[in-house]
Amino acid sequence: MHILEIIEKKRDKEKLSKEEIEFIIRGYTNGTIPDYQMSALIMAIYLNGMDDEETTNMTIAMANSGEILDLKEIDKTIVDKHSTGGVGDKVSLILLPLVASLGVPVAKMSGRGLGFTGGTVDKLESIPGYNTEISTEKFIDSVKKIGISMISQSMDLAPADKKIYALRDSISCVESIPLIASSIMSKKIASGAEKIVIDVTVGNGAFMKNVTDAEKLAKTMINIGKLANRETICILTNMEEPLGYAVGNNLEVKEAVKFLKGEEIPKDLKDVVFELGAYMIKLAGLGNDLEKNKEKLQENILNKKGYKKLLEMVKNQEGDITYLEDLEKIPKAKFVGKVISDKEGFIEKIPAKEVGKIACYLGAGRERKEDKIDNSVGVVLKKKIGSKVKKDECIVEIFANDENKLKEAVEKMKEIITVTDLQKSLKKPIKIS
Amino acid sequence: MHILEIIEKKRDKEKLSKEEIEFIIRGYTNGTIPDYQMSALIMAIYLNGMDDEETTNMTIAMANSGEILDLKEIDKTIVDKHSTGGVGDKVSLILLPLVASLGVPVAKMSGRGLGFTGGTVDKLESIPGYNTEISTEKFIDSVKKIGISMISQSMDLAPADKKIYALRDSISCVESIPLIASSIMSKKIASGAEKIVIDVTVGNGAFMKNVTDAEKLAKTMINIGKLANRETICILTNMEEPLGYAVGNNLEVKEAVKFLKGEEIPKDLKDVVFELGAYMIKLAGLGNDLEKNKEKLQENILNKKGYKKLLEMVKNQEGDITYLEDLEKIPKAKFVGKVISDKEGFIEKIPAKEVGKIACYLGAGRERKEDKIDNSVGVVLKKKIGSKVKKDECIVEIFANDENKLKEAVEKMKEIITVTDLQKSLKKPIKIS
Repeated sequence: MHILEIIEKKRDKEKLSKEEIEFIIRGYTNGTIPDYQMSALIMAIYLNGMDDEETTNMTIAMANSGEILDLKEIDKTIVDKHSTGGVGDKVSLILLPLVASLGVPVAKMSGRGLGFTGGTVDKLESIPGYNTEISTEKFIDSVKKIGISMISQSMDLAPADKKIYALRDSISCVESIPLIASSIMSKKIASGAEKIVIDVTVGNGAFMKNVTDAEKLAKTMINIGKLANRETICILTNMEEPLGYAVGNNLEVKEAVKFLKGEEIPKDLKDVVFELGAYMIKLAGLGNDLEKNKEKLQENILNKKGYKKLLEMVKNQEGDITYLEDLEKIPKAKFVGKVISDKEGFIEKIPAKEVGKIACYLGAGRERKEDKIDNSVGVVLKKKIGSKVKKDECIVEIFANDENKLKEAVEKMKEIITVTDLQKSLKKPIKIS
Repeated sequence: MHILEIIEKKRDKEKLSKEEIEFIIRGYTNGTIPDYQMSALIMAIYLNGMDDEETTNMTIAMANSGEILDLKEIDKTIVDKHSTGGVGDKVSLILLPLVASLGVPVAKMSGRGLGFTGGTVDKLESIPGYNTEISTEKFIDSVKKIGISMISQSMDLAPADKKIYALRDSISCVESIPLIASSIMSKKIASGAEKIVIDVTVGNGAFMKNVTDAEKLAKTMINIGKLANRETICILTNMEEPLGYAVGNNLEVKEAVKFLKGEEIPKDLKDVVFELGAYMIKLAGLGNDLEKNKEKLQENILNKKGYKKLLEMVKNQEGDITYLEDLEKIPKAKFVGKVISDKEGFIEKIPAKEVGKIACYLGAGRERKEDKIDNSVGVVLKKKIGSKVKKDECIVEIFANDENKLKEAVEKMKEIITVTDLQKSLKKPIKIS
């Protein structure tokens, strides 16, 4: 086998064999295939595509490039949850304790945020003391003992994916459906998932800008799941505006806790949590009726079992639960600014990506991997798309620790939010099969 | 300007601006753009193409990446000749002294051979003493004094092209028309050509396998010539079988000398020499009537002025002309083998590429740049495509310095030559405009 012949095949729109794909992934991971040959191949894949069989073979080869987490000891069906990324996405913080409280085992590895999207690990770490870097042993033990653990993704999972992703990023080849699909699925397989529920976000604040592309990505991942024997369900969800109200690490933790306590449940966030939750329960073998599963989720919000499961997990991972029991204890930013509507009407646009960028600018996210984040800054929406707004009413509150940045953030936010005379309806999650 | 945006544009089939192309070529030559980004861009160019304006801008940027030879001192129109490569191609050895004897100034830089195609410099160096590496000063002086000099291509011409060509070769991106065209034309412009006649070879032994692709390449180069103000004429010539009879360095020198002496003039070789020669004379401003130009060429074969010009050039560059005056002095290979026809009929195929490979195997060419070549080995055809052949008649003579290699070469040659009952006609050169 020779790399030049493999590049030539993909250049000429031919299909690569399993052996050829394994040869590439092995060679690139161990350094015998140099970056410049891999980048030519990646561009050829970007432009000429890969079919589901090639994509699956790539996924499995990338998963096998490092450690594969063995969760058999847990002795229950492990259902993993993934999101393709968004702004204000605190779904894991709510959904996972909630389904764990219903008996679905949760062994969840998450990433840190980069750019305008936040990472679950960063949000968890805004809870004082919470340890996201416990040993694999303790991770598995926790799932066995209390039914849930949420940790930071280990460095050894799918190293080929890590190396290829960095290369794609440096050659303008990120937005390729087979490459995105294999990247996501390889990490899921490496982290021991048997069944997978994926939140495929669509719109301004997501990787996929339109439903057609999002459906393609969803179908590709579902087919990889079939071929790789990992049942996969994809839910398309709206990411035109931030999910829920809060964007920013401890602001989102607060919102998640309020949700689990039943105090404040934004409709869009509830739709996503309930839709994904119903399928997680089903895949875990704990109930085939989706409507009944949703009722169970509702019940465990009302009886606070989900909230208690969150406290149990936080305590188990050395976090200080008093911050969750008394949300007033959570540190607040020094300065608060308001974006005020200058007319009456309905909210037309709160573009998620731009809101994410503003939060990032305030310090809630990282521009580079080595950046530190500020847990208390961010934005809290007072209105959502379609909400009625009066003149002089507040649309967004902005939290900052720098007065100049606050002023700029308020100005930027005013520019991106639009108010109109016609009410727009929100799009509901769609299941893809 | 950012390389990621440029890669993205070409990835999305957009046109690159002059400034963007200059940025890439400058950055890649000085090393600020790494190989892995350039190779992604090259693959995107391979798959999405470049229009004539982009190709011309790339050509000029590559020519400007190093020294541009200044031939103004010669004070005559410099017409350069180029071939896209072939087997048995001794055209420059014959054509250039011939047109020089008619007053067309010849300042020719040639390359060495690699793979199955031979290089003019290697052929010249098979003449004992011939120095292909004289100074630029002496090169220009020679053209002024005796009207001709043929030397080896300097290392400083179009370094960007050299670096990009090496990269293309290592990522399966050689066969791209805009990239081949800009590579050829950048070297021609850098070597001081004002007008250019290009022999675009087509068929089994050429880069271009069919007339459609060869026409595209020709038209691309003609358009670059127009846009870059270097009048360019392209002649498509047949490279299904080797050109003329001999393949191998001193065997081809012998054939060239015999041609110039009028002793032995194979039809296909004559067609190419006369067609290119007629245009060179025209471009040099020494006669617009192509038929009359051909008559002048014929005349200077008969009166041996072309042959004398060759001797003058060889002497001027320290070569021993007694080897040309008495061709029996040229060293012969130790072993000679014959390929004998086992039936009567007409020669159907003598595939040029395979003949070139056999000659290369015998030692006439290099497989790697550092290989030494054996001047006396090679093959001499006794028949051409369409020739009548009797049973037991000799088709090819093979010259070797290794008996085992000779045996293998005879066997291989038997396998590739086919004899048929129907006579095929030879294709004549075609001018493209």
